[in-house]
Amino acid sequence: MTFPPLREELRGLLPYGAPQLPIDEVPVQLNVNENPYGPSDACVADIASAVAVAAATLNRYPDREFTELRAALAAYLSGDTSASVGPEQVWAANGSNEVMLQLLQAFGGPGRLALSFAPTYSMYPEYARDTVTEWVEGRREDDFTLDLDRARALVEERRPSVVLLPSPNNPTGTALAPEAVTVLCDAVGDGLVVVDEAYGEFRRDGTPSALDLLPTHRNLVVTRTMSKAFALAGGRLGYLAAHPAICDAIRVVRLPYHLSAVTQATALAALRHAPELLARVDDLRKERDATVDWLRDRGHDVADSDANFVLFGTFADRHAVWQGLLDRGVLIREVGPSGWLRVSVGTPEEMGAFREALVHVTEEQR
Amino acid sequence: MTFPPLREELRGLLPYGAPQLPIDEVPVQLNVNENPYGPSDACVADIASAVAVAAATLNRYPDREFTELRAALAAYLSGDTSASVGPEQVWAANGSNEVMLQLLQAFGGPGRLALSFAPTYSMYPEYARDTVTEWVEGRREDDFTLDLDRARALVEERRPSVVLLPSPNNPTGTALAPEAVTVLCDAVGDGLVVVDEAYGEFRRDGTPSALDLLPTHRNLVVTRTMSKAFALAGGRLGYLAAHPAICDAIRVVRLPYHLSAVTQATALAALRHAPELLARVDDLRKERDATVDWLRDRGHDVADSDANFVLFGTFADRHAVWQGLLDRGVLIREVGPSGWLRVSVGTPEEMGAFREALVHVTEEQR
Repeated sequence: MTFPPLREELRGLLPYGAPQLPIDEVPVQLNVNENPYGPSDACVADIASAVAVAAATLNRYPDREFTELRAALAAYLSGDTSASVGPEQVWAANGSNEVMLQLLQAFGGPGRLALSFAPTYSMYPEYARDTVTEWVEGRREDDFTLDLDRARALVEERRPSVVLLPSPNNPTGTALAPEAVTVLCDAVGDGLVVVDEAYGEFRRDGTPSALDLLPTHRNLVVTRTMSKAFALAGGRLGYLAAHPAICDAIRVVRLPYHLSAVTQATALAALRHAPELLARVDDLRKERDATVDWLRDRGHDVADSDANFVLFGTFADRHAVWQGLLDRGVLIREVGPSGWLRVSVGTPEEMGAFREALVHVTEEQR
Repeated sequence: MTFPPLREELRGLLPYGAPQLPIDEVPVQLNVNENPYGPSDACVADIASAVAVAAATLNRYPDREFTELRAALAAYLSGDTSASVGPEQVWAANGSNEVMLQLLQAFGGPGRLALSFAPTYSMYPEYARDTVTEWVEGRREDDFTLDLDRARALVEERRPSVVLLPSPNNPTGTALAPEAVTVLCDAVGDGLVVVDEAYGEFRRDGTPSALDLLPTHRNLVVTRTMSKAFALAGGRLGYLAAHPAICDAIRVVRLPYHLSAVTQATALAALRHAPELLARVDDLRKERDATVDWLRDRGHDVADSDANFVLFGTFADRHAVWQGLLDRGVLIREVGPSGWLRVSVGTPEEMGAFREALVHVTEEQR
């Protein structure tokens, strides 16, 4: 060992995360798929008063089972699916990244495999690494969908204990076909299929949620987050819906009192404002569709998007395009397959700034 | 695999945690070492207004580096040690249990060992288990102190990458002799010595903090929590002070944005009220000393305590004593070596109720 005694395989690695640049230096930040609309004054006031109530007894540990929050999340999910979701089917943690870590702590680990299909969310291999779970990566097709025969064959060959399927996929925006969930839930046997619906509320009309399939697949886990649709990225509340035995098993590896009383109060207050917050989601879906259309009209390749971001390209030198946009005060993300860029969907004003900057940059580089 | 595919070694295990009983059923709760004094009205108002400010931009991710909070924690620690602590020496997470998990993710893991001396904090082996770190347990002496020659020999024999030393120890309340830190920091080579000072602010006059030794041992980590002295168990904020290279290494394994904007705002507000909150710590130290004296006067064995709890015994049937107290509305903790019980230090009224109940129970069982 040398000092500091960091594990050998972690040495030289950079911590995960996009650059955080000051808003007064880069006014249009469309790089981390945040919701551009903050909570309303009424929602902010409700959060503050809920936290004031919680603060009076902060000397006490929080409810370890977050009973009220589980019930509220279950009620919300039941409104977003044809199936009904009960509190015993819900689990939550500090962001869906902690939910994923707990899933792999409980159901992955040494001697087990987690599998996904690239290009996909770049944190997944880190969750696997941090839980000593072997990471296996299949490939998506050129249009970022899954070939179900090949996907099934890979699952049957490698026998993962956890399959991670984001829908819509990040960074491509691609929703999963419902039959993919069924095929892979069957293929994985007693392993788990985790459908990561972090951006689920942004799906287009006609795209179903995997929540609908919970009653028919006991090994299906659907994760969600309040970061995006609920405009609560700063509040850190991720959650999942699954068979009660799965929720119960996670309790063995969760750190006791992992959800603070303040987090529970904040999330509950935001859930009370769901109709208002979700109305903004509709605005963003329209803005997203308009962005896809505009980019295609300009001759770009654009991945179909069911999310609050759009992957577009392809550029011989995508870094130059990214830098050109940044020079004009528009920060997007250089991520995904070679040649592609990802832009989060912001307000109409922000998307206007993005379009204007992109026209300049692409004309300069012609 | 069977359903659910929980790891084999986790099957049948119960989630960690003391029973949480309703306060209207058990009015005197002295079982989880909470601070009995809630934050003042002024502190509650400050937390609420700080959270209201943070809530207005909760659609954005929090500051991943929690810059302001690190500086405030460093300033606070610098007031509790003869050494000075800079922000680059501070790391924080959701409770000191997340700090410990991150330490073992970065510096433990497969092929490495974590070592402590029993009886000690019962969560430590769970952190080791959840990070696939081998767990080695030495023994404390009959008075719960460490025999430094034996401790050094064990460390030199087993070569752990992390030694966990709570001071004061939980559940015994025993503070570590300062020379123990020096001896074990030398013995462990480039491994780390983590002195867990969760209850550090409750130490008796003349008991030093291991913070004083940070300048002389680059492999020393001192952990703290705001749960106890800052009456913020519900807020979940643990932290550590160490060499900057150690803090930097932890960033590789931390989940991005692990500290919510609400948590950061809450902790900062509580730190602004440190003088008021720490005045209550002085009250609790006096109550603790009085409790130790009273128990000894009654003929019980009592471990010296530098914490906000007292370990006392010994009872042929400690469960009967614990149950007798609970029947009288006083909940303490059945934990630690056989025959001993642990009581948290509450308000004078709560300790009066504890004393009265204990007199009844012990006289009944005579």
